[in-house]
Amino acid sequence: MTAVAEELLLARAAWSRLTEPADVVAGAVVAALGPVPALELVRETARTGAAAVGPRAGEVLPGSARAVQRLTTALERWCPRLETLDAARELDRHRARGGDLLVPEDARWPAGLDDLGAEAPHALWVSGAVAALGSAADGVAVIGARACTHYGEHVTAEVAAGVVAAGRVVVSGGAYGIDAAAHRAALAADGVTLAVLAGGVDRLYPAGNARLLLALAEEGGALLSEVPPGSVPSRRRFLQRNRLIAALTGATVVVEAAWRSGALSTAARAAALLRPVGAVPGPVTSAASAGCHRLLRDGVAVCVTDAAEVLELLRGGAATDGRAAAGPPGREVTDGLDEAARQVLDALPVRAWAQVASVTRVAGVSGAQARGALGLLELAGLAQRRGETWRRVSSGRSG
Amino acid sequence: MTAVAEELLLARAAWSRLTEPADVVAGAVVAALGPVPALELVRETARTGAAAVGPRAGEVLPGSARAVQRLTTALERWCPRLETLDAARELDRHRARGGDLLVPEDARWPAGLDDLGAEAPHALWVSGAVAALGSAADGVAVIGARACTHYGEHVTAEVAAGVVAAGRVVVSGGAYGIDAAAHRAALAADGVTLAVLAGGVDRLYPAGNARLLLALAEEGGALLSEVPPGSVPSRRRFLQRNRLIAALTGATVVVEAAWRSGALSTAARAAALLRPVGAVPGPVTSAASAGCHRLLRDGVAVCVTDAAEVLELLRGGAATDGRAAAGPPGREVTDGLDEAARQVLDALPVRAWAQVASVTRVAGVSGAQARGALGLLELAGLAQRRGETWRRVSSGRSG
Repeated sequence: MTAVAEELLLARAAWSRLTEPADVVAGAVVAALGPVPALELVRETARTGAAAVGPRAGEVLPGSARAVQRLTTALERWCPRLETLDAARELDRHRARGGDLLVPEDARWPAGLDDLGAEAPHALWVSGAVAALGSAADGVAVIGARACTHYGEHVTAEVAAGVVAAGRVVVSGGAYGIDAAAHRAALAADGVTLAVLAGGVDRLYPAGNARLLLALAEEGGALLSEVPPGSVPSRRRFLQRNRLIAALTGATVVVEAAWRSGALSTAARAAALLRPVGAVPGPVTSAASAGCHRLLRDGVAVCVTDAAEVLELLRGGAATDGRAAAGPPGREVTDGLDEAARQVLDALPVRAWAQVASVTRVAGVSGAQARGALGLLELAGLAQRRGETWRRVSSGRSG
Repeated sequence: MTAVAEELLLARAAWSRLTEPADVVAGAVVAALGPVPALELVRETARTGAAAVGPRAGEVLPGSARAVQRLTTALERWCPRLETLDAARELDRHRARGGDLLVPEDARWPAGLDDLGAEAPHALWVSGAVAALGSAADGVAVIGARACTHYGEHVTAEVAAGVVAAGRVVVSGGAYGIDAAAHRAALAADGVTLAVLAGGVDRLYPAGNARLLLALAEEGGALLSEVPPGSVPSRRRFLQRNRLIAALTGATVVVEAAWRSGALSTAARAAALLRPVGAVPGPVTSAASAGCHRLLRDGVAVCVTDAAEVLELLRGGAATDGRAAAGPPGREVTDGLDEAARQVLDALPVRAWAQVASVTRVAGVSGAQARGALGLLELAGLAQRRGETWRRVSSGRSG
């Protein structure tokens, strides 16, 4: 563990308790003053009353009257929680349970989170293997609907298994459906998977996933949250949690999502952070794929159909060129032939013998082209000669 | 019928017999000399021998030695078919069966075909209602795999029915699978549908679709081909037929297509002609959708999931803005609330009564915000007050 001063850790822990996720005023104040002096400002405000803070803030923070007004409002928002704040006790209890607290000042802090700017979290409460976070930037967020289908579960398992087989970590939420399927498949393939929770890391929500979440933390992965242990997973926290999943990872894949789904917000956040986004298509008759198709139509996501295409996202593109060049399945015998030879092959009867003149007319080529092509086709085993007549050697019809 | 000189019709009919589809040399010669003089050049070559044509061509056609060489080669290709050419008899027989021959000089010629330049067809042999072609430019090509799935047939039927319900014509090939499903659904919805065939319009191929193809020609639609009656549907003709489907219509939709499918060539031709292309997604586990997903990944096609989205293609875009603004399904009760009110709503217990101070802390808002939000939520029927305590009026949890 790198040395981060305890005072700094406690101040960051306090900020994660006092504020709701993505409170940009908190982010700006902490960035401007530092976590410890900024926290002192909140405490002073609580002692002297919010009304007194205007001039005080004006002293320490540059900015217009409007900025001071925003800060005043924010302090009114933060102060009520000071009453019950006890960061030291919270951190002690978290550590006693084997947890860790990561802060931006720590060398192990995932750099991707800094892309969130003033919306970056104050800290990450971690349960499990902190080291796993170091791989998140090259990992893939595999996310989607809670109400997923068997199809969605199947594709999630394929994708997650392929991601860990490539030595990458999987990142997801803690919900039923796609999230759980992703973690389960990653674990089954002996991979590392991270769950970013909307509530505290001791709040294993939903309860039905508690065993799975504990298991992933024990097997090289980790549970992460920007809110302290004990915090409930509220609606706003769920939505803001999505930005962490997007920012932590190198690419985000939505496997199934309804027309209106939290996964779409994660995809939008990832796209806004210039992270590649993939969406898995599905039947248009399946409501569970409607959100994926929406992402494709809106150009937010690239169509991905297997783990290989998902991993291509990490390499910065959806180019199918490599794959096309490698030769798609179903290569045909006529692939190496030029156009005239194909036409001649097509013009050859299978059950009868034809004169060269007839083949020439039917194919619509010159006599010289026909003769050349017939020789070529004979060599390729596609045409057969008998005296001055020719026929095709039977093979499946194409076109 | 508009007046096109019989000599011109016969010359165009002859060109459609002498050449294979999309013979660009033929297209260029006919465009430069006119169909009648260009045909005379072929006849003269046949009389005097191909070797004599070089200088002759140099006289009548501007161009380099290389162009003359290309013409000489082309004449060698066309001449063998002169022996069996009898355009007048062919046209008479076609008319006797109620057929019509459309040429570019005819006012009824579908203007979209001119976008093909030197690859434009010399003529269209039509069986059925010629008038239907006038609507093709606003119509939709609904195409796809012969080896389609029930899913593909189902979606095809939905799309085709929606297209004709909007007063548009459907255009497709004559194959089993998606083509047949498109025609069938259009007919079932009393719509007009056009089949563009790779062989002659009297060659109802495959035989199993003969009744369907005859029915669509009798019920306001038409069968079209650029090759004369009696011509067989060769591989090359199938591929080149695709450019006609692409050029005739205002948009092309691929419903199902394998990784390697003729439908992809139609899509590529449509895209090259700057016609909008749509692809219907499907399960990634279905090989019959692999080609559609390829089109989506390559950016050739836009994701379309129903007839409404297909019709949007005709209006020149895949923007979902209109739909999103119109309000997607599943509107939630919290939609009109601001962020603070949502947080307060989320912080309210359902089965207990909470003090305002507690709600304020849990929600992470200021006391003033909490009080304002509670009043708002009460008015909206989402929160209930009892003395100085509040609770949430039960509704589904979201997030």
